Amino acid sequence: MSATCQDSFTQALAQIWAAHHGNNDGEVASYIPELTRADPNHFGLAIATIDGRLRTHGDVEVPFTIQSVSKAFAFALAMEAVGLHNIAPHVGLEPSADPFNAIVFDVENRPFNPMVNAGAIVTSAILLDHFGDEAFPTLLARFSAAAGRSLPVNEAVYQSESRTGERNRAIAHLLKANGHLPGDPDAVLDLYFRQCAIEVTAIDLALMGATAANMGQNPATGQSVFDVVAIRGMLSVMFTCGMYDHAGTWAFDVGIPAKSGVGGGILGVVNRQLGIAGFSPRLDRWGNSVRGVAAFETLSQEFGLHAFDCTNVGSAYLSSLIA
Amino acid sequence: MSATCQDSFTQALAQIWAAHHGNNDGEVASYIPELTRADPNHFGLAIATIDGRLRTHGDVEVPFTIQSVSKAFAFALAMEAVGLHNIAPHVGLEPSADPFNAIVFDVENRPFNPMVNAGAIVTSAILLDHFGDEAFPTLLARFSAAAGRSLPVNEAVYQSESRTGERNRAIAHLLKANGHLPGDPDAVLDLYFRQCAIEVTAIDLALMGATAANMGQNPATGQSVFDVVAIRGMLSVMFTCGMYDHAGTWAFDVGIPAKSGVGGGILGVVNRQLGIAGFSPRLDRWGNSVRGVAAFETLSQEFGLHAFDCTNVGSAYLSSLIA
Amino acid sequence: MSATCQDSFTQALAQIWAAHHGNNDGEVASYIPELTRADPNHFGLAIATIDGRLRTHGDVEVPFTIQSVSKAFAFALAMEAVGLHNIAPHVGLEPSADPFNAIVFDVENRPFNPMVNAGAIVTSAILLDHFGDEAFPTLLARFSAAAGRSLPVNEAVYQSESRTGERNRAIAHLLKANGHLPGDPDAVLDLYFRQCAIEVTAIDLALMGATAANMGQNPATGQSVFDVVAIRGMLSVMFTCGMYDHAGTWAFDVGIPAKSGVGGGILGVVNRQLGIAGFSPRLDRWGNSVRGVAAFETLSQEFGLHAFDCTNVGSAYLSSLIA
Amino acid sequence: MSATCQDSFTQALAQIWAAHHGNNDGEVASYIPELTRADPNHFGLAIATIDGRLRTHGDVEVPFTIQSVSKAFAFALAMEAVGLHNIAPHVGLEPSADPFNAIVFDVENRPFNPMVNAGAIVTSAILLDHFGDEAFPTLLARFSAAAGRSLPVNEAVYQSESRTGERNRAIAHLLKANGHLPGDPDAVLDLYFRQCAIEVTAIDLALMGATAANMGQNPATGQSVFDVVAIRGMLSVMFTCGMYDHAGTWAFDVGIPAKSGVGGGILGVVNRQLGIAGFSPRLDRWGNSVRGVAAFETLSQEFGLHAFDCTNVGSAYLSSLIA
Repeated sequence: MSATCQDSFTQALAQIWAAHHGNNDGEVASYIPELTRADPNHFGLAIATIDGRLRTHGDVEVPFTIQSVSKAFAFALAMEAVGLHNIAPHVGLEPSADPFNAIVFDVENRPFNPMVNAGAIVTSAILLDHFGDEAFPTLLARFSAAAGRSLPVNEAVYQSESRTGERNRAIAHLLKANGHLPGDPDAVLDLYFRQCAIEVTAIDLALMGATAANMGQNPATGQSVFDVVAIRGMLSVMFTCGMYDHAGTWAFDVGIPAKSGVGGGILGVVNRQLGIAGFSPRLDRWGNSVRGVAAFETLSQEFGLHAFDCTNVGSAYLSSLIA
Repeated sequence: MSATCQDSFTQALAQIWAAHHGNNDGEVASYIPELTRADPNHFGLAIATIDGRLRTHGDVEVPFTIQSVSKAFAFALAMEAVGLHNIAPHVGLEPSADPFNAIVFDVENRPFNPMVNAGAIVTSAILLDHFGDEAFPTLLARFSAAAGRSLPVNEAVYQSESRTGERNRAIAHLLKANGHLPGDPDAVLDLYFRQCAIEVTAIDLALMGATAANMGQNPATGQSVFDVVAIRGMLSVMFTCGMYDHAGTWAFDVGIPAKSGVGGGILGVVNRQLGIAGFSPRLDRWGNSVRGVAAFETLSQEFGLHAFDCTNVGSAYLSSLIA
Repeated sequence: MSATCQDSFTQALAQIWAAHHGNNDGEVASYIPELTRADPNHFGLAIATIDGRLRTHGDVEVPFTIQSVSKAFAFALAMEAVGLHNIAPHVGLEPSADPFNAIVFDVENRPFNPMVNAGAIVTSAILLDHFGDEAFPTLLARFSAAAGRSLPVNEAVYQSESRTGERNRAIAHLLKANGHLPGDPDAVLDLYFRQCAIEVTAIDLALMGATAANMGQNPATGQSVFDVVAIRGMLSVMFTCGMYDHAGTWAFDVGIPAKSGVGGGILGVVNRQLGIAGFSPRLDRWGNSVRGVAAFETLSQEFGLHAFDCTNVGSAYLSSLIA
Repeated sequence: MSATCQDSFTQALAQIWAAHHGNNDGEVASYIPELTRADPNHFGLAIATIDGRLRTHGDVEVPFTIQSVSKAFAFALAMEAVGLHNIAPHVGLEPSADPFNAIVFDVENRPFNPMVNAGAIVTSAILLDHFGDEAFPTLLARFSAAAGRSLPVNEAVYQSESRTGERNRAIAHLLKANGHLPGDPDAVLDLYFRQCAIEVTAIDLALMGATAANMGQNPATGQSVFDVVAIRGMLSVMFTCGMYDHAGTWAFDVGIPAKSGVGGGILGVVNRQLGIAGFSPRLDRWGNSVRGVAAFETLSQEFGLHAFDCTNVGSAYLSSLIA
């Protein structure tokens, strides 16, 4: 831990932003045509604490689509709605070493986990099956409550993916064929594409993260948004699977449960402490924001945020349990 | 967290032991002939705290071979010896969704991670290349320092695996062919087989875990055994890859960095708090001790040991950093 | 070659029929619901020669859907229509060791060959792209000309597969995503499902085979149906890929270019000599008719029909070419 | 078929040689160090007929190691020695779409076929198990009888592969682990490496091919070398698997049972007619000689040598069988 420890997060964010702003590696996502219109130079960093403080630097009010970051919260919602025991038969919990859009299933023919597209489509199917027409309104209301404001949907991105998402369409039909997708594939995909097109800013993501870190309660509004048990499961899956086939290296280097999206967002959750958001549209080969990953690496190192850092003493009262 | 929270760990261990002792699911490992001689009914549980307390129940002084639990500590040793930057070109950090003895490599033709056999054989090669003839004595001395006593080698198991380990022999030659194994495959395998044949008890494992939890320092002897940075890396890899292709489910259910071995041992490390050991020879289809897994699930739930449990507040001083 | 050689094919067919009629191994195809209505006891064998003779035994006038046998002729039609050079970028020519409905592509992201579902769907797309609304009428007219009668479509099977073919729907969308499917996936599948639902008898298949064997000219009607170069390509692909992941064993044991369908039909072509058809609905684990395979094995052995049998002297005038 | 049909094979070989001699695509094999010493410009073509004529052009007396071409004849020998029913449990007959040195097995954990390295190593094990110390002398004697002269072994290549063949060593140990390799892996590999290091010329290969084409009898010496049933099986496997993961395309374009080796040789057999050999050391990405493949394509087209060409009338007496 360097000298910055004594400085505020604000100062650290500014330094980290400056250190990585010149990095133009990576490419803006192109597989949804509308995403190519993103400004590749945008770069924003935001941290929200569970006691309601917010620190930011850069383009933290620029809207972008949440994309796969939504998978984590949708999975939490599904666990609350139907329980893991009703999800587990249709989607696993194992990291897979395959890209996010891989069409590869486990020995039980399920998607490997809810953080890859196939698994997230199953999550959507479960939500649609449970909530019916109220599925998307419910999900949007929860996401909004976590962010503390009413989140809009980017219609252009939604339409763009609806028209072009052939690979996800293939996945949905295959899940149907394998018996792991309740309901109509097209209706499920419509929910999935809408969910991915929800528009957020880096500040929104940081607040959503702080809500998760704060046992599911929005620290700013005080509203209880997610069940605490669902949060634990969500963080576990984010830690092992959230950064796709780069998740293990991320767990080693950064050690923060996180989820990235091809819109350029990365959300990290330091349990019981912080929500952290990075936003920058250029992606590396795993589909994660190049500058976002770099910023998280520095932040984790400087502030000892790694789940297994020696500064992380875990539950303070534990040793007192031993008589 | 149930009422047992107010009880001592000793009482909890006894209850958990009793709850799972009757479970005769699973099979004793047979791919090393000598392992089949294990008594399938053995079952021991041990917890060591970083302030030197030890709680146990059952067969905690029965010796068994450490097998793959050794991979975690050998990897820590290699990181200390040559640095991750010299290891990374030859072994990745990603979970692979494949069985422990899989012959599958990543896009750079490396083993996916150091917790599968292929990756652990690379670790052995790196140690042999660095320490030469002193490789095994050095490794054994470190393991012994972590356990707080001089650990023996089970010669019968070592000989048995040397004679029959055709699959590991295949892996070593393949790693050689791929340019990821410095040195002679046969010599590397000899080190690997010896390392796997180190004999421990559940108490030893718990103490080795407590040493890791205690920033690398043996809480009983006060001896500094492992570098604190290597420990963080070791725990990260254990969390994402330690339980083989069951690691994600374990991370979800138990949430404790852990490593299992086909000798029936499971070692868990609650960072800055506890080393936990389970020992019971019957294995599930992933190669993990059936009763051991069950005991860890209960322990984690009852005492809130999950890394992302709401009781885990992480680094206590963090929020004070924000001016 | 046994004594039956001196007998007529008629006699041989009767003997072979009798030898295998009692074999009730295998299961009627169930993945298209309508196919389960087939009578599992049906068994018919037919041979048509290129000089217009026809020999039959058993249920040779029972109609069944052509299913994947159509893939061979549709591929020939596509080669004629647009040339192999326009097909090759989108489908390979290599056997794949995968089941007929596998979702696995080659290093260029193409289906491995036109005999697996994915490749056959590409063939349909190419035909639809080339012939437009005339695609199915053209294909049906050609198939009918090869069989020497106007072939009907089984509407119930067509509807049944249209409603349930989720796996093929997934394949079509994936091909679209990979850039290997011109046109609209749903329209392509409609053509594909119709083509598979064309209804034939064993006699029809034998005549279609004789047309292929006779350099593309129907031996009974004298009508020229297929181009001779397309026939050579079609037979080559049938030989290496026609019996799915059992093709190599078939090439070894039987040595006749052949194509099977899950309706229970198998069509074999002995170049310049015979069309042979087997029909029996119970399928083995590769999706080939159990009794059909057995009948072909005996027929090939008894009459030296194997492409590399010592009795097969090939082109008679070849040696005269050497001055 | 072009005008050259009226010319002699000699003239055709000269024309084809001239057409492809300038093609410098591909690379000399480098995975056995000694092979890199080959002169990349060598190019020889030879045809031997079953009535004892020989036509050649170019470097047809330059020695090179037989390498994988040996797999076909060794497999024939094994079929004769122990029967297919004793081979089949340990090696399949299916093409695999994988490279020649792939470490991939079928659902029964066997090598896919005897033409990939893994399958050929099983063949060696079977020969060693059956013939003991006489295995290599027997094999060499047969190969020599097929070529009509005593073939030498290239000791430098044999030693070079013995020292460096780590990948094949891995395969052998893995086959042992899977229960598909009788005997000691090192002894089996010694036989395999020796067999691959047998030295031939293009003329030798053509004569070996003519022996196969001539029902196993050497047309020059009259010696009976291979059983006629083994020849049929050998040609079948060569047709479906002989050119590795390019076999299907070869079957489509060339249509001649063939086997290539990384020494630059390709052997083709036109059943009951010809042995054809090409030799040129530069290899394409599948491991087949670039110029050799090109020469075979032209030869097959010009002389109608494709197994399913319309000029190939097969067994002349067949139609007479129909009463």
